[in-house]
Amino acid sequence: MSSRVLINKLVVIGTGLIGGSFALALKRARAVKRVAGVGRTRRNLADALRLKAIDEASQDAARAVRDADLVLLATPVEQMPAVMTAIAPHLPARAIVTDAGSTKRDVIACARRFLGGHFTRFVPGHPIAGTEKSGASSAFPELFRGRNVILTPQRETAAPATRLVQRAWEACGARVTRLDAQEHDAILATVSHLPHVIAFALVNMLASRPNPGRLFGLSAGGLRDTVRIAGSSPEMWADICIANRDALLAVLEDYENELEQMRAAIEGADSAELRRMFTRARNTREKWLVKKRY
Amino acid sequence: MSSRVLINKLVVIGTGLIGGSFALALKRARAVKRVAGVGRTRRNLADALRLKAIDEASQDAARAVRDADLVLLATPVEQMPAVMTAIAPHLPARAIVTDAGSTKRDVIACARRFLGGHFTRFVPGHPIAGTEKSGASSAFPELFRGRNVILTPQRETAAPATRLVQRAWEACGARVTRLDAQEHDAILATVSHLPHVIAFALVNMLASRPNPGRLFGLSAGGLRDTVRIAGSSPEMWADICIANRDALLAVLEDYENELEQMRAAIEGADSAELRRMFTRARNTREKWLVKKRY
Repeated sequence: MSSRVLINKLVVIGTGLIGGSFALALKRARAVKRVAGVGRTRRNLADALRLKAIDEASQDAARAVRDADLVLLATPVEQMPAVMTAIAPHLPARAIVTDAGSTKRDVIACARRFLGGHFTRFVPGHPIAGTEKSGASSAFPELFRGRNVILTPQRETAAPATRLVQRAWEACGARVTRLDAQEHDAILATVSHLPHVIAFALVNMLASRPNPGRLFGLSAGGLRDTVRIAGSSPEMWADICIANRDALLAVLEDYENELEQMRAAIEGADSAELRRMFTRARNTREKWLVKKRY
Repeated sequence: MSSRVLINKLVVIGTGLIGGSFALALKRARAVKRVAGVGRTRRNLADALRLKAIDEASQDAARAVRDADLVLLATPVEQMPAVMTAIAPHLPARAIVTDAGSTKRDVIACARRFLGGHFTRFVPGHPIAGTEKSGASSAFPELFRGRNVILTPQRETAAPATRLVQRAWEACGARVTRLDAQEHDAILATVSHLPHVIAFALVNMLASRPNPGRLFGLSAGGLRDTVRIAGSSPEMWADICIANRDALLAVLEDYENELEQMRAAIEGADSAELRRMFTRARNTREKWLVKKRY
Protein backbone atom coordinates (compact mmCIF):
# COMPACT_ATOMS: atom_id res chain seq x y z
CA MET A 1 0.00 0.00 0.00
CA SER A 2 1.38 3.43 -0.94
CA SER A 3 0.97 6.42 1.35
CA ARG A 4 1.51 8.92 -1.51
CA VAL A 5 -1.48 11.09 -2.34
CA LEU A 6 -2.78 9.89 -5.69
CA ILE A 7 -5.94 11.94 -5.89
CA ASN A 8 -6.71 15.47 -4.74
CA LYS A 9 -10.44 15.26 -5.12
CA LEU A 10 -12.38 12.04 -5.48
CA VAL A 11 -16.07 12.15 -6.35
CA VAL A 12 -18.01 8.99 -5.55
CA ILE A 13 -21.34 8.82 -7.35
CA GLY A 14 -23.37 6.21 -5.51
CA THR A 15 -22.16 6.08 -1.92
CA GLY A 16 -23.24 2.52 -1.12
CA LEU A 17 -21.23 -0.49 0.04
CA ILE A 18 -18.72 -0.29 -2.84
CA GLY A 19 -18.44 3.50 -3.22
CA GLY A 20 -18.29 4.05 0.53
CA SER A 21 -15.69 1.34 1.08
CA PHE A 22 -13.52 2.66 -1.80
CA ALA A 23 -13.51 6.12 -0.20
CA LEU A 24 -12.78 4.73 3.28
CA ALA A 25 -9.92 2.56 1.97
CA LEU A 26 -8.29 5.43 0.04
CA LYS A 27 -8.58 7.69 3.07
CA ARG A 28 -7.03 5.11 5.34
CA ALA A 29 -4.15 4.76 2.82
CA ARG A 30 -3.87 8.58 2.75
CA ALA A 31 -4.15 8.31 -1.03
CA VAL A 32 -6.89 10.93 -1.32
CA LYS A 33 -7.25 14.46 0.05
CA ARG A 34 -10.96 15.13 -0.23
CA VAL A 35 -14.00 13.04 -1.09
CA ALA A 36 -17.37 14.27 -2.29
CA GLY A 37 -20.27 11.85 -2.27
CA VAL A 38 -23.25 12.04 -4.58
CA GLY A 39 -26.31 9.97 -3.79
CA ARG A 40 -30.02 9.76 -4.40
CA THR A 41 -31.14 9.50 -0.79
CA ARG A 42 -30.31 11.86 2.07
CA ARG A 43 -30.21 8.98 4.49
CA ASN A 44 -27.46 7.16 2.62
CA LEU A 45 -25.45 10.37 2.25
CA ALA A 46 -25.88 11.06 5.98
CA ASP A 47 -24.59 7.54 6.74
CA ALA A 48 -21.58 8.13 4.47
CA LEU A 49 -20.81 11.46 6.19
CA ARG A 50 -21.20 9.93 9.66
CA LEU A 51 -18.78 7.12 8.71
CA LYS A 52 -16.39 9.79 7.35
CA ALA A 53 -16.35 7.98 4.02
CA ILE A 54 -17.09 11.36 2.41
CA ASP A 55 -16.29 14.94 3.43
CA GLU A 56 -19.15 16.59 1.59
CA ALA A 57 -22.47 15.35 0.28
CA SER A 58 -24.48 16.40 -2.72
CA GLN A 59 -27.47 15.25 -4.74
CA ASP A 60 -26.18 17.08 -7.82
CA ALA A 61 -23.62 15.03 -9.75
CA ALA A 62 -22.99 17.78 -12.34
CA ARG A 63 -21.89 20.32 -9.69
CA ALA A 64 -19.88 17.81 -7.70
CA VAL A 65 -17.60 16.73 -10.57
CA ARG A 66 -16.51 20.24 -11.59
CA ASP A 67 -13.20 20.05 -9.71
CA ALA A 68 -12.83 16.25 -9.65
CA ASP A 69 -9.56 14.44 -10.30
CA LEU A 70 -11.12 10.99 -10.12
CA VAL A 71 -14.78 10.09 -10.41
CA LEU A 72 -16.00 6.64 -9.34
CA LEU A 73 -19.38 5.65 -10.74
CA ALA A 74 -20.72 3.20 -8.17
CA THR A 75 -24.43 3.41 -8.93
CA PRO A 76 -26.46 0.50 -10.26
CA VAL A 77 -25.51 -0.06 -13.90
CA GLU A 78 -29.02 0.91 -14.94
CA GLN A 79 -28.41 4.50 -13.82
CA MET A 80 -25.14 4.93 -15.73
CA PRO A 81 -26.62 6.52 -18.89
CA ALA A 82 -28.36 9.25 -16.86
CA VAL A 83 -25.32 9.85 -14.64
CA MET A 84 -22.88 10.00 -17.56
CA THR A 85 -25.17 12.34 -19.48
CA ALA A 86 -25.39 14.61 -16.44
CA ILE A 87 -21.67 14.82 -15.70
CA ALA A 88 -20.10 14.81 -19.20
CA PRO A 89 -20.50 18.59 -19.85
CA HIS A 90 -19.05 19.46 -16.41
CA LEU A 91 -16.03 17.15 -16.16
CA PRO A 92 -12.70 18.99 -16.11
CA ALA A 93 -10.34 17.95 -18.92
CA ARG A 94 -7.96 16.28 -16.44
CA ALA A 95 -10.63 14.17 -14.72
CA ILE A 96 -10.34 10.40 -14.88
CA VAL A 97 -13.58 8.44 -14.65
CA THR A 98 -13.94 4.83 -13.58
CA ASP A 99 -16.80 2.61 -12.56
CA ALA A 100 -17.56 -0.39 -10.36
CA GLY A 101 -20.25 -2.02 -12.47
CA SER A 102 -20.63 -5.80 -12.36
CA THR A 103 -20.93 -6.00 -16.13
CA LYS A 104 -18.53 -4.32 -18.51
CA ARG A 105 -19.62 -4.46 -22.15
CA ASP A 106 -22.80 -2.50 -21.47
CA VAL A 107 -21.07 0.12 -19.31
CA ILE A 108 -18.37 0.60 -21.96
CA ALA A 109 -21.01 1.05 -24.69
CA CYS A 110 -22.76 3.55 -22.47
CA ALA A 111 -19.56 5.52 -21.75
CA ARG A 112 -18.63 5.53 -25.42
CA ARG A 113 -22.01 7.06 -26.17
CA PHE A 114 -22.48 9.49 -23.28
CA LEU A 115 -19.02 10.58 -22.07
CA GLY A 116 -18.04 12.11 -25.43
CA GLY A 117 -14.44 13.33 -25.50
CA HIS A 118 -13.90 12.11 -21.94
CA PHE A 119 -14.12 8.48 -23.08
CA THR A 120 -10.29 8.30 -23.45
CA ARG A 121 -10.00 8.89 -19.69
CA PHE A 122 -12.73 6.37 -18.79
CA VAL A 123 -11.29 3.21 -17.20
CA PRO A 124 -13.91 0.43 -16.94
CA GLY A 125 -13.49 -1.47 -13.69
CA HIS A 126 -15.09 -4.09 -11.48
CA PRO A 127 -14.09 -4.83 -7.90
CA ILE A 128 -15.04 -8.47 -7.23
CA ALA A 129 -15.98 -7.89 -3.65
CA GLY A 130 -19.13 -7.30 -1.75
CA THR A 131 -21.33 -8.76 0.90
CA GLU A 132 -25.02 -9.54 0.83
CA LYS A 133 -25.53 -6.15 2.52
CA SER A 134 -25.91 -2.85 0.75
CA GLY A 135 -25.88 0.87 1.57
CA ALA A 136 -23.26 3.25 3.00
CA SER A 137 -23.80 1.93 6.52
CA SER A 138 -22.34 -1.44 5.40
CA ALA A 139 -19.14 0.14 4.03
CA PHE A 140 -15.77 -0.69 5.59
CA PRO A 141 -12.21 0.07 4.50
CA GLU A 142 -10.99 -3.56 4.37
CA LEU A 143 -13.63 -4.67 1.85
CA PHE A 144 -11.15 -4.83 -1.04
CA ARG A 145 -8.13 -6.19 0.79
CA GLY A 146 -6.81 -9.23 -1.08
CA ARG A 147 -9.76 -9.11 -3.48
CA ASN A 148 -9.62 -9.04 -7.26
CA VAL A 149 -10.37 -5.90 -9.21
CA ILE A 150 -10.71 -6.30 -12.96
CA LEU A 151 -9.99 -3.41 -15.32
CA THR A 152 -11.06 -3.67 -18.96
CA PRO A 153 -9.42 -0.67 -20.68
CA GLN A 154 -10.28 -0.14 -24.35
CA ARG A 155 -7.83 0.66 -27.13
CA GLU A 156 -8.78 4.35 -26.81
CA THR A 157 -8.14 4.43 -23.06
CA ALA A 158 -5.17 6.62 -22.12
CA ALA A 159 -2.48 4.54 -20.41
CA PRO A 160 -1.91 7.05 -17.55
CA ALA A 161 -5.63 6.92 -16.71
CA THR A 162 -5.53 3.14 -16.41
CA ARG A 163 -2.37 3.35 -14.29
CA LEU A 164 -3.94 5.85 -11.88
CA VAL A 165 -7.05 3.71 -11.42
CA GLN A 166 -4.90 0.61 -10.93
CA ARG A 167 -2.83 2.39 -8.25
CA ALA A 168 -5.95 3.58 -6.47
CA TRP A 169 -7.31 0.02 -6.21
CA GLU A 170 -3.91 -1.25 -5.13
CA ALA A 171 -3.92 1.40 -2.41
CA CYS A 172 -7.18 -0.23 -1.23
CA GLY A 173 -5.30 -3.53 -0.94
CA ALA A 174 -6.77 -5.10 -4.06
CA ARG A 175 -5.12 -7.29 -6.72
CA VAL A 176 -5.69 -5.75 -10.16
CA THR A 177 -6.13 -7.88 -13.30
CA ARG A 178 -6.70 -6.53 -16.81
CA LEU A 179 -9.08 -8.48 -19.00
CA ASP A 180 -10.96 -8.22 -22.24
CA ALA A 181 -14.47 -6.90 -21.48
CA GLN A 182 -16.23 -9.83 -23.12
CA GLU A 183 -14.09 -12.32 -21.21
CA HIS A 184 -14.90 -10.45 -17.99
CA ASP A 185 -18.62 -10.73 -18.64
CA ALA A 186 -18.43 -14.46 -19.46
CA ILE A 187 -16.37 -15.21 -16.34
CA LEU A 188 -18.63 -13.21 -14.05
CA ALA A 189 -21.76 -14.82 -15.49
CA THR A 190 -20.30 -18.15 -14.36
CA VAL A 191 -18.77 -17.39 -10.97
CA SER A 192 -21.15 -14.72 -9.74
CA HIS A 193 -24.33 -14.06 -11.71
CA LEU A 194 -25.40 -17.70 -12.02
CA PRO A 195 -24.77 -18.49 -8.31
CA HIS A 196 -27.02 -15.54 -7.42
CA VAL A 197 -29.82 -16.81 -9.68
CA ILE A 198 -29.43 -20.27 -8.13
CA ALA A 199 -29.65 -18.90 -4.58
CA PHE A 200 -32.71 -16.76 -5.36
CA ALA A 201 -34.45 -19.72 -7.05
CA LEU A 202 -33.70 -22.11 -4.20
CA VAL A 203 -35.10 -19.74 -1.57
CA ASN A 204 -38.24 -19.15 -3.64
CA MET A 205 -38.75 -22.89 -3.98
CA LEU A 206 -38.58 -23.24 -0.20
CA ALA A 207 -40.90 -20.27 0.26
CA SER A 208 -43.49 -22.01 -1.92
CA ARG A 209 -43.60 -25.18 0.20
CA PRO A 210 -46.24 -25.67 2.89
CA ASN A 211 -44.98 -24.43 6.29
CA PRO A 212 -41.75 -22.72 5.23
CA GLY A 213 -41.08 -21.73 8.85
CA ARG A 214 -40.72 -25.35 9.89
CA LEU A 215 -38.48 -26.02 6.87
CA PHE A 216 -36.12 -23.16 7.63
CA GLY A 217 -36.29 -23.95 11.35
CA LEU A 218 -34.98 -27.47 10.70
CA SER A 219 -32.31 -26.36 8.23
CA ALA A 220 -28.62 -26.26 9.05
CA GLY A 221 -25.48 -24.42 7.95
CA GLY A 222 -25.49 -26.03 4.51
CA LEU A 223 -28.66 -24.27 3.41
CA ARG A 224 -27.69 -21.04 5.19
CA ASP A 225 -24.40 -20.76 3.31
CA THR A 226 -25.86 -21.87 -0.01
CA VAL A 227 -28.45 -19.08 0.03
CA ARG A 228 -26.47 -16.30 1.74
CA ILE A 229 -26.23 -14.32 -1.49
CA ALA A 230 -30.03 -14.41 -1.86
CA GLY A 231 -29.83 -11.48 0.58
CA SER A 232 -28.33 -9.31 -2.17
CA SER A 233 -30.05 -6.26 -3.65
CA PRO A 234 -32.93 -7.34 -5.94
CA GLU A 235 -32.70 -4.13 -8.01
CA MET A 236 -28.98 -4.46 -8.61
CA TRP A 237 -29.18 -8.14 -9.48
CA ALA A 238 -32.14 -7.75 -11.84
CA ASP A 239 -30.07 -5.13 -13.70
CA ILE A 240 -26.98 -7.35 -13.80
CA CYS A 241 -28.89 -10.40 -15.06
CA ILE A 242 -30.46 -8.42 -17.86
CA ALA A 243 -27.30 -6.51 -18.78
CA ASN A 244 -25.32 -9.75 -19.07
CA ARG A 245 -28.12 -11.97 -20.20
CA ASP A 246 -26.46 -13.64 -23.21
CA ALA A 247 -23.53 -14.89 -21.16
CA LEU A 248 -25.77 -15.74 -18.21
CA LEU A 249 -28.27 -17.74 -20.30
CA ALA A 250 -25.41 -19.74 -21.81
CA VAL A 251 -24.01 -20.82 -18.44
CA LEU A 252 -27.49 -21.35 -17.01
CA GLU A 253 -28.09 -23.86 -19.78
CA ASP A 254 -24.83 -25.67 -18.99
CA TYR A 255 -25.82 -25.77 -15.32
CA GLU A 256 -29.26 -27.15 -16.11
CA ASN A 257 -27.59 -29.89 -18.16
CA GLU A 258 -25.39 -30.84 -15.19
CA LEU A 259 -28.46 -30.88 -12.97
CA GLU A 260 -30.30 -33.05 -15.50
CA GLN A 261 -27.46 -35.61 -15.49
CA MET A 262 -27.67 -35.78 -11.71
CA ARG A 263 -31.46 -36.07 -11.85
CA ALA A 264 -31.18 -39.00 -14.25
CA ALA A 265 -28.64 -40.78 -12.03
CA ILE A 266 -30.84 -40.27 -8.95
CA GLU A 267 -33.92 -41.50 -10.78
CA GLY A 268 -32.04 -44.55 -12.02
CA ALA A 269 -30.53 -45.15 -8.55
CA ASP A 270 -27.15 -45.19 -10.29
CA SER A 271 -24.92 -45.06 -7.27
CA ALA A 272 -21.64 -45.41 -9.17
CA GLU A 273 -22.47 -42.53 -11.51
CA LEU A 274 -23.61 -40.28 -8.65
CA ARG A 275 -20.41 -41.00 -6.73
CA ARG A 276 -18.37 -40.21 -9.81
CA MET A 277 -20.14 -36.86 -10.31
CA PHE A 278 -20.02 -35.90 -6.63
CA THR A 279 -16.35 -36.90 -6.39
CA ARG A 280 -15.51 -34.73 -9.37
CA ALA A 281 -17.23 -31.78 -7.67
CA ARG A 282 -15.52 -32.42 -4.35
CA ASN A 283 -12.08 -32.69 -5.93
CA THR A 284 -12.61 -29.57 -8.03
CA ARG A 285 -13.69 -27.53 -5.02
CA GLU A 286 -10.76 -28.88 -2.99
CA LYS A 287 -8.25 -27.97 -5.68
CA TRP A 288 -9.44 -24.47 -6.52
CA LEU A 289 -11.27 -23.15 -3.49
CA VAL A 290 -9.51 -24.88 -0.58
CA LYS A 291 -5.92 -25.40 -1.76
CA LYS A 292 -6.22 -22.51 -4.28
CA ARG A 293 -3.94 -24.04 -6.89
CA TYR A 294 -4.54 -21.37 -9.50
CA MET B 1 -27.18 -29.96 30.12
CA SER B 2 -27.37 -32.71 32.73
CA SER B 3 -24.28 -34.02 34.45
CA ARG B 4 -26.02 -37.26 35.49
CA VAL B 5 -24.60 -40.43 33.94
CA LEU B 6 -27.19 -41.65 31.44
CA ILE B 7 -25.21 -44.44 29.84
CA ASN B 8 -22.74 -46.91 31.26
CA LYS B 9 -21.42 -48.21 27.99
CA LEU B 10 -21.91 -46.51 24.68
CA VAL B 11 -20.92 -48.26 21.47
CA VAL B 12 -20.45 -46.01 18.45
CA ILE B 13 -20.45 -47.92 15.18
CA GLY B 14 -18.88 -45.59 12.63
CA THR B 15 -16.53 -43.22 14.47
CA GLY B 16 -16.60 -40.37 11.95
CA LEU B 17 -17.55 -36.73 12.38
CA ILE B 18 -21.00 -37.52 13.82
CA GLY B 19 -20.17 -40.61 15.89
CA GLY B 20 -16.96 -39.07 17.22
CA SER B 21 -18.61 -35.78 18.12
CA PHE B 22 -21.54 -37.56 19.87
CA ALA B 23 -19.04 -39.48 22.04
CA LEU B 24 -16.98 -36.36 22.79
CA ALA B 25 -20.09 -34.35 23.72
CA LEU B 26 -21.45 -37.06 26.04
CA LYS B 27 -18.06 -37.41 27.71
CA ARG B 28 -17.77 -33.68 28.24
CA ALA B 29 -21.27 -33.70 29.81
CA ARG B 30 -20.19 -36.67 31.97
CA ALA B 31 -23.26 -38.48 30.66
CA VAL B 32 -21.36 -41.63 29.65
CA LYS B 33 -18.87 -43.85 31.49
CA ARG B 34 -17.21 -45.78 28.71
CA VAL B 35 -17.23 -45.59 24.93
CA ALA B 36 -16.26 -48.30 22.48
CA GLY B 37 -15.74 -47.34 18.87
CA VAL B 38 -16.22 -49.69 15.94
CA GLY B 39 -14.86 -48.67 12.54
CA ARG B 40 -13.71 -50.07 9.25
CA THR B 41 -10.34 -48.38 9.08
CA ARG B 42 -7.57 -48.52 11.68
CA ARG B 43 -6.59 -44.97 10.89
CA ASN B 44 -9.99 -43.55 11.74
CA LEU B 45 -10.14 -45.61 14.95
CA ALA B 46 -6.64 -44.40 15.86
CA ASP B 47 -7.79 -40.79 15.34
CA ALA B 48 -10.83 -41.41 17.55
CA LEU B 49 -8.65 -42.91 20.32
CA ARG B 50 -6.14 -40.06 20.07
CA LEU B 51 -8.95 -37.49 20.40
CA LYS B 52 -10.27 -39.50 23.41
CA ALA B 53 -13.65 -39.76 21.67
CA ILE B 54 -13.49 -43.50 22.39
CA ASP B 55 -11.82 -45.54 25.12
CA GLU B 56 -11.48 -48.76 23.15
CA ALA B 57 -11.45 -49.56 19.45
CA SER B 58 -12.65 -52.59 17.59
CA GLN B 59 -13.33 -53.71 14.05
CA ASP B 60 -15.83 -56.31 15.27
CA ALA B 61 -19.28 -54.81 15.87
CA ALA B 62 -20.77 -58.09 17.13
CA ARG B 63 -18.24 -58.36 19.97
CA ALA B 64 -18.37 -54.69 20.87
CA VAL B 65 -22.13 -54.54 21.48
CA ARG B 66 -22.27 -57.49 23.94
CA ASP B 67 -22.31 -55.26 27.01
CA ALA B 68 -23.72 -52.11 25.40
CA ASP B 69 -26.36 -49.92 27.03
CA LEU B 70 -26.68 -47.62 24.03
CA VAL B 71 -25.55 -48.29 20.47
CA LEU B 72 -25.27 -45.41 17.98
CA LEU B 73 -25.21 -46.48 14.34
CA ALA B 74 -23.31 -43.68 12.62
CA THR B 75 -22.17 -45.47 9.49
CA PRO B 76 -23.32 -44.53 6.00
CA VAL B 77 -26.95 -45.64 5.60
CA GLU B 78 -25.87 -48.11 2.93
CA GLN B 79 -24.01 -50.17 5.55
CA MET B 80 -26.92 -50.38 7.99
CA PRO B 81 -28.32 -53.75 6.79
CA ALA B 82 -24.93 -55.45 7.24
CA VAL B 83 -24.29 -53.77 10.61
CA MET B 84 -27.74 -54.57 11.98
CA THR B 85 -27.49 -58.17 10.80
CA ALA B 86 -24.11 -58.49 12.52
CA ILE B 87 -25.14 -57.02 15.89
CA ALA B 88 -28.73 -58.28 16.31
CA PRO B 89 -27.80 -61.74 17.72
CA HIS B 90 -25.35 -60.18 20.23
CA LEU B 91 -27.30 -57.23 21.62
CA PRO B 92 -28.17 -57.53 25.31
CA ALA B 93 -31.90 -57.36 26.03
CA ARG B 94 -31.51 -53.98 27.75
CA ALA B 95 -29.61 -52.31 24.91
CA ILE B 96 -31.15 -49.34 23.19
CA VAL B 97 -30.14 -48.75 19.57
CA THR B 98 -30.33 -45.44 17.72
CA ASP B 99 -28.91 -44.13 14.46
CA ALA B 100 -27.77 -40.88 12.87
CA GLY B 101 -28.84 -41.57 9.31
CA SER B 102 -29.86 -38.65 7.09
CA THR B 103 -32.89 -40.53 5.81
CA LYS B 104 -35.38 -42.26 8.07
CA ARG B 105 -37.92 -44.37 6.19
CA ASP B 106 -35.25 -46.62 4.71
CA VAL B 107 -33.38 -47.03 8.01
CA ILE B 108 -36.62 -47.86 9.82
CA ALA B 109 -37.51 -50.49 7.20
CA CYS B 110 -34.04 -51.93 7.56
CA ALA B 111 -34.23 -52.04 11.39
CA ARG B 112 -37.68 -53.64 11.25
CA ARG B 113 -36.22 -56.35 9.06
CA PHE B 114 -32.81 -56.95 10.62
CA LEU B 115 -33.03 -56.05 14.32
CA GLY B 116 -35.72 -58.62 15.07
CA GLY B 117 -37.01 -58.44 18.65
CA HIS B 118 -34.74 -55.47 19.36
CA PHE B 119 -36.82 -53.26 17.06
CA THR B 120 -38.92 -52.01 20.01
CA ARG B 121 -35.77 -50.47 21.49
CA PHE B 122 -34.63 -48.94 18.20
CA VAL B 123 -35.05 -45.14 18.17
CA PRO B 124 -34.58 -43.67 14.67
CA GLY B 125 -32.75 -40.36 14.85
CA HIS B 126 -31.08 -37.71 12.75
CA PRO B 127 -28.82 -34.96 14.09
CA ILE B 128 -29.07 -32.05 11.63
CA ALA B 129 -25.50 -30.99 12.01
CA GLY B 130 -22.29 -31.55 10.20
CA THR B 131 -19.62 -29.78 8.29
CA GLU B 132 -18.24 -30.46 4.84
CA LYS B 133 -15.48 -32.44 6.55
CA SER B 134 -15.63 -36.08 7.50
CA GLY B 135 -13.71 -38.57 9.62
CA ALA B 136 -12.93 -38.85 13.34
CA SER B 137 -10.22 -36.20 13.09
CA SER B 138 -12.95 -33.62 12.29
CA ALA B 139 -15.02 -34.48 15.41
CA PHE B 140 -15.54 -31.88 18.13
CA PRO B 141 -17.80 -31.86 21.20
CA GLU B 142 -19.69 -28.65 20.32
CA LEU B 143 -20.96 -29.94 16.96
CA PHE B 144 -24.52 -30.46 18.21
CA ARG B 145 -24.85 -27.42 20.47
CA GLY B 146 -28.01 -25.53 19.53
CA ARG B 147 -28.60 -27.86 16.57
CA ASN B 148 -31.75 -29.79 15.79
CA VAL B 149 -31.96 -33.53 16.29
CA ILE B 150 -35.04 -35.23 14.87
CA LEU B 151 -36.34 -38.49 16.33
CA THR B 152 -38.92 -40.50 14.42
CA PRO B 153 -40.07 -43.20 16.88
CA GLN B 154 -42.52 -45.78 15.53
CA ARG B 155 -45.65 -47.02 17.27
CA GLU B 156 -43.71 -50.11 18.44
CA THR B 157 -40.89 -48.03 19.93
CA ALA B 158 -40.73 -48.30 23.74
CA ALA B 159 -41.26 -44.86 25.30
CA PRO B 160 -38.31 -45.21 27.77
CA ALA B 161 -35.98 -45.93 24.85
CA THR B 162 -37.04 -42.74 23.07
CA ARG B 163 -36.67 -40.76 26.31
CA LEU B 164 -33.13 -42.02 26.89
CA VAL B 165 -32.04 -41.14 23.36
CA GLN B 166 -33.67 -37.73 23.67
CA ARG B 167 -31.81 -37.08 26.95
CA ALA B 168 -28.51 -38.14 25.43
CA TRP B 169 -28.89 -35.65 22.56
CA GLU B 170 -29.98 -32.94 24.98
CA ALA B 171 -26.82 -33.64 27.01
CA CYS B 172 -24.92 -32.85 23.78
CA GLY B 173 -26.67 -29.46 23.72
CA ALA B 174 -29.10 -30.32 20.92
CA ARG B 175 -32.77 -29.40 20.52
CA VAL B 176 -34.83 -32.56 19.99
CA THR B 177 -37.94 -32.62 17.76
CA ARG B 178 -40.11 -35.67 17.10
CA LEU B 179 -41.48 -36.04 13.61
CA ASP B 180 -43.20 -38.54 11.39
CA ALA B 181 -40.53 -40.36 9.34
CA GLN B 182 -42.09 -39.46 6.01
CA GLU B 183 -42.31 -35.79 6.97
CA HIS B 184 -38.68 -35.91 8.06
CA ASP B 185 -37.61 -37.27 4.69
CA ALA B 186 -39.63 -34.67 2.76
CA ILE B 187 -38.24 -31.79 4.83
CA LEU B 188 -34.66 -32.97 4.56
CA ALA B 189 -34.96 -33.46 0.79
CA THR B 190 -35.82 -29.76 0.61
CA VAL B 191 -33.46 -28.13 3.09
CA SER B 192 -30.47 -30.42 2.79
CA HIS B 193 -30.42 -33.01 0.01
CA LEU B 194 -31.42 -30.64 -2.79
CA PRO B 195 -28.91 -27.92 -1.76
CA HIS B 196 -26.16 -30.57 -1.90
CA VAL B 197 -27.17 -31.65 -5.41
CA ILE B 198 -27.24 -27.99 -6.47
CA ALA B 199 -23.75 -27.34 -5.08
CA PHE B 200 -22.29 -30.46 -6.71
CA ALA B 201 -23.89 -29.56 -10.07
CA LEU B 202 -22.67 -25.95 -9.95
CA VAL B 203 -19.08 -26.98 -9.25
CA ASN B 204 -19.16 -29.55 -12.06
CA MET B 205 -20.47 -26.92 -14.45
CA LEU B 206 -17.53 -24.66 -13.56
CA ALA B 207 -15.11 -27.57 -13.87
CA SER B 208 -16.33 -28.15 -17.44
CA ARG B 209 -15.57 -24.60 -18.61
CA PRO B 210 -12.31 -23.72 -20.33
CA ASN B 211 -9.65 -22.55 -17.85
CA PRO B 212 -11.44 -23.36 -14.56
CA GLY B 213 -8.41 -22.10 -12.61
CA ARG B 214 -8.93 -18.57 -13.88
CA LEU B 215 -12.67 -18.83 -13.13
CA PHE B 216 -12.15 -19.92 -9.54
CA GLY B 217 -9.27 -17.47 -9.15
CA LEU B 218 -11.58 -14.57 -10.01
CA SER B 219 -14.46 -15.81 -7.86
CA ALA B 220 -15.43 -14.24 -4.55
CA GLY B 221 -17.14 -15.20 -1.32
CA GLY B 222 -20.52 -15.68 -2.99
CA LEU B 223 -19.39 -18.70 -4.98
CA ARG B 224 -17.29 -20.03 -2.10
CA ASP B 225 -20.25 -20.10 0.29
CA THR B 226 -22.69 -21.40 -2.30
CA VAL B 227 -20.55 -24.46 -3.02
CA ARG B 228 -19.10 -25.14 0.45
CA ILE B 229 -21.21 -28.27 0.84
CA ALA B 230 -19.82 -29.65 -2.44
CA GLY B 231 -16.92 -30.67 -0.18
CA SER B 232 -19.15 -33.27 1.47
CA SER B 233 -18.56 -37.03 1.22
CA PRO B 234 -19.52 -38.29 -2.28
CA GLU B 235 -20.23 -41.80 -0.97
CA MET B 236 -22.53 -40.62 1.79
CA TRP B 237 -24.40 -38.20 -0.45
CA ALA B 238 -24.87 -40.69 -3.28
CA ASP B 239 -26.45 -43.02 -0.71
CA ILE B 240 -28.69 -40.29 0.70
CA CYS B 241 -29.89 -39.14 -2.72
CA ILE B 242 -30.82 -42.66 -3.72
CA ALA B 243 -32.37 -43.59 -0.37
CA ASN B 244 -34.59 -40.51 -0.46
CA ARG B 245 -35.01 -40.25 -4.17
CA ASP B 246 -38.80 -39.89 -4.41
CA ALA B 247 -38.87 -36.89 -2.09
CA LEU B 248 -35.70 -35.46 -3.65
CA LEU B 249 -36.95 -35.76 -7.24
CA ALA B 250 -40.17 -33.98 -6.27
CA VAL B 251 -38.39 -30.94 -4.83
CA LEU B 252 -35.81 -30.97 -7.62
CA GLU B 253 -38.67 -30.58 -10.07
CA ASP B 254 -40.09 -27.65 -8.09
CA TYR B 255 -36.65 -26.04 -8.04
CA GLU B 256 -36.21 -26.50 -11.79
CA ASN B 257 -39.58 -24.80 -12.29
CA GLU B 258 -38.43 -21.80 -10.23
CA LEU B 259 -35.23 -21.67 -12.24
CA GLU B 260 -37.20 -21.85 -15.47
CA GLN B 261 -39.33 -18.86 -14.42
CA MET B 262 -36.17 -16.88 -13.75
CA ARG B 263 -34.66 -17.99 -17.06
CA ALA B 264 -37.77 -16.78 -18.90
CA ALA B 265 -37.68 -13.39 -17.15
CA ILE B 266 -33.97 -12.99 -17.94
CA GLU B 267 -34.50 -13.98 -21.56
CA GLY B 268 -37.40 -11.54 -21.86
CA ALA B 269 -35.40 -8.80 -20.08
CA ASP B 270 -38.39 -8.52 -17.73
CA SER B 271 -36.86 -6.34 -15.06
CA ALA B 272 -40.05 -5.92 -13.00
CA GLU B 273 -40.63 -9.67 -12.81
CA LEU B 274 -37.00 -10.39 -11.91
CA ARG B 275 -37.10 -7.76 -9.15
CA ARG B 276 -40.31 -9.28 -7.82
CA MET B 277 -38.81 -12.77 -7.72
CA PHE B 278 -35.49 -11.65 -6.22
CA THR B 279 -37.28 -9.49 -3.64
CA ARG B 280 -39.41 -12.45 -2.57
CA ALA B 281 -36.24 -14.50 -2.08
CA ARG B 282 -34.49 -11.73 -0.17
CA ASN B 283 -37.45 -11.17 2.14
CA THR B 284 -37.89 -14.89 2.76
CA ARG B 285 -34.23 -15.35 3.66
CA GLU B 286 -34.34 -12.26 5.89
CA LYS B 287 -37.40 -13.49 7.76
CA TRP B 288 -36.38 -17.10 8.34
CA LEU B 289 -32.62 -17.23 8.24
CA VAL B 290 -31.58 -13.81 9.55
CA LYS B 291 -34.35 -12.80 11.97
CA LYS B 292 -35.36 -16.45 12.53
CA ARG B 293 -39.04 -15.79 13.02
CA TYR B 294 -40.06 -19.43 13.23
